Amino acid sequence: MLKTSSSSILRRQNFLIRTLIGSHYNNQIHIINKPVQKLSAQFGSMTTTTTEADSESILRRITPTLDPHRHKGQAGKVAVIGGCREYTGAPYFAAISALKIGADLSHVFCTKDAAPIIKSYSPELIVHPILKESYSVRDEERRSILSKVLAEVAKWMERFDCIVVGPGLGRDPFLLDCVSEIMKLARRSNVPIVVDGDGLFLVTNNLDLVSGYHLAVLTPNVNEYKRLVQKVIGTEVNDQDAAEELLYLARGIGGTTVLRKGKSDLISDGVTVNMVSIFGSPRRCGGQGDILSGSVAVFSSWARQCISVAESDSSTSRVNPMVLGCIAASALLRKAASMAFQDKKRATLTTDIIEYLGRSLEDISPAS
Amino acid sequence: MLKTSSSSILRRQNFLIRTLIGSHYNNQIHIINKPVQKLSAQFGSMTTTTTEADSESILRRITPTLDPHRHKGQAGKVAVIGGCREYTGAPYFAAISALKIGADLSHVFCTKDAAPIIKSYSPELIVHPILKESYSVRDEERRSILSKVLAEVAKWMERFDCIVVGPGLGRDPFLLDCVSEIMKLARRSNVPIVVDGDGLFLVTNNLDLVSGYHLAVLTPNVNEYKRLVQKVIGTEVNDQDAAEELLYLARGIGGTTVLRKGKSDLISDGVTVNMVSIFGSPRRCGGQGDILSGSVAVFSSWARQCISVAESDSSTSRVNPMVLGCIAASALLRKAASMAFQDKKRATLTTDIIEYLGRSLEDISPAS
Repeated sequence: MLKTSSSSILRRQNFLIRTLIGSHYNNQIHIINKPVQKLSAQFGSMTTTTTEADSESILRRITPTLDPHRHKGQAGKVAVIGGCREYTGAPYFAAISALKIGADLSHVFCTKDAAPIIKSYSPELIVHPILKESYSVRDEERRSILSKVLAEVAKWMERFDCIVVGPGLGRDPFLLDCVSEIMKLARRSNVPIVVDGDGLFLVTNNLDLVSGYHLAVLTPNVNEYKRLVQKVIGTEVNDQDAAEELLYLARGIGGTTVLRKGKSDLISDGVTVNMVSIFGSPRRCGGQGDILSGSVAVFSSWARQCISVAESDSSTSRVNPMVLGCIAASALLRKAASMAFQDKKRATLTTDIIEYLGRSLEDISPAS
Repeated sequence: MLKTSSSSILRRQNFLIRTLIGSHYNNQIHIINKPVQKLSAQFGSMTTTTTEADSESILRRITPTLDPHRHKGQAGKVAVIGGCREYTGAPYFAAISALKIGADLSHVFCTKDAAPIIKSYSPELIVHPILKESYSVRDEERRSILSKVLAEVAKWMERFDCIVVGPGLGRDPFLLDCVSEIMKLARRSNVPIVVDGDGLFLVTNNLDLVSGYHLAVLTPNVNEYKRLVQKVIGTEVNDQDAAEELLYLARGIGGTTVLRKGKSDLISDGVTVNMVSIFGSPRRCGGQGDILSGSVAVFSSWARQCISVAESDSSTSRVNPMVLGCIAASALLRKAASMAFQDKKRATLTTDIIEYLGRSLEDISPAS
């Protein structure tokens, strides 16, 4: 966890988190706003409410004050596990977005082939060329290389506030074996995991990797969500009962948070369902999901920090920081995409949206 | 084909395509405007008219509405086959232009040497380092490597709305053998092919690769056109009969669309001849043809989408989407080149023109 540096910050955060619990969470659980259609025929009766999250307010409340007393690392250290011979853009987008939002350090763990390229995109990232794909590994070496990869990652794991698994990971079997072990290591170390892209392919086929882990977030797009629902609930996606279906899905994975990306983003941890539907951009250029996963990593780390401070002085522990992180990340990406689209219109690309992350954040939560 | 997501879009596109068929196509075929000089002495009598295409209107009509209900990929997925040890700029220009116009995903299939460089130009592209040149292939390996390359491309082919063959391809014999097989695969999969640069060298020597394929477009410059005319018609280029010559050329290749680049661009599929002569830029820096090929890929995909929607509700199928795509791409490049030249004058480079693609498109077809 991030550490705070002064008692004044502690007091401020205590105040903020009480406000947060008092307003946001009551909204989500206790106030019945708009009953959504039920999956009751399929899953039995249950009352679900989906409320539009007060996302900008949540974002403001979890974003830490910039305090000159703090030192490097305290605003967040994240790592992206991804990047292979084929894909290098996705891990870059996730890692650089984390920095642009305000994390202090952003690492990438990728294959040897991908590392020089990702490094060339930006000198700001720390890129570790330690993963390997099957084509460069002889059968008899597999076990020793796997141990070596794990030992390398283990040296760093406890320093991370969150890892993002999947952007540009590819589907090489040996690589996915290594990444499974990295996820188990993260889980043993109590390090939160955001899973996107090919990480979702891995997880959908190995639900145990995240099942029951409350510090995991899955961020599926249309197709990834479809496969998850088929695997976990055993049905096709039913958009009429979107909120209830998502609730059951999250519950089916043991309370892991799921952010279902779409025209509106829906977020559930099996307890609440939140919606973020402020308008973003109609451009669907590839890479926006990577911005989101990097952003969830940072915001959920900040939310955990907030909540752990509050909990030290309170018995309440009902706020799920992963859910708050998802809400804030979704809102910020939408706002940045909207600003980029205003500027670049149809030519808007993911790098343009990243350039607007800072201004969007400043609009919602001014640094001073 | 791209898929539409709502009936309102369907209705709008139906309306647009009816307008398109009612105005543009009548213009091209039925209204005799300016009779051009005949090649009749050589080819027998035939009435050909070349009209200045109402290119901005066509561009506006085929460009899809940006609809928040759509998801990633629906605005277009294209791939460029090109990039070798010697050339890396050309495939980048073609692939990034496709994104800047509004495609969602843009891939490049190139050699191992070229891939890291092309990746480093932009994290937005998905670059597959799968092609090989003769120097890195032993004779006894040729067959197995060719199969491997084809298998890799085959995994992706059906996802593409269009492929561009040739930018920075080079002329290595083994590489061209692989690319011939890729073109046959695309054709079997009914995926449109835009051929430029060294792809035209390949095709001029193997006309069967495109002959009779109505979803192919050739975009020759002066010299490439000269070789095509020599090969197909068996004469030297005769600028006095440019329109009729182009018509016969396109007909000689079995109805493949040919965009002859020049002071004015001439476009024919063997049925009509269209001209785009709005002023571009007097700068002739290398790479502008690559912008054009990437743009033709996107616009012809959009035109196919428009027409397939219209056909589902109409018996008319006289509009050739490849011709519409060429007209729109030619117009956009000229406008972007003109704007870049206004700004940069003699220092105008291809990257400057690419930066103006978005603004030019917005001027002609506002995103909202």
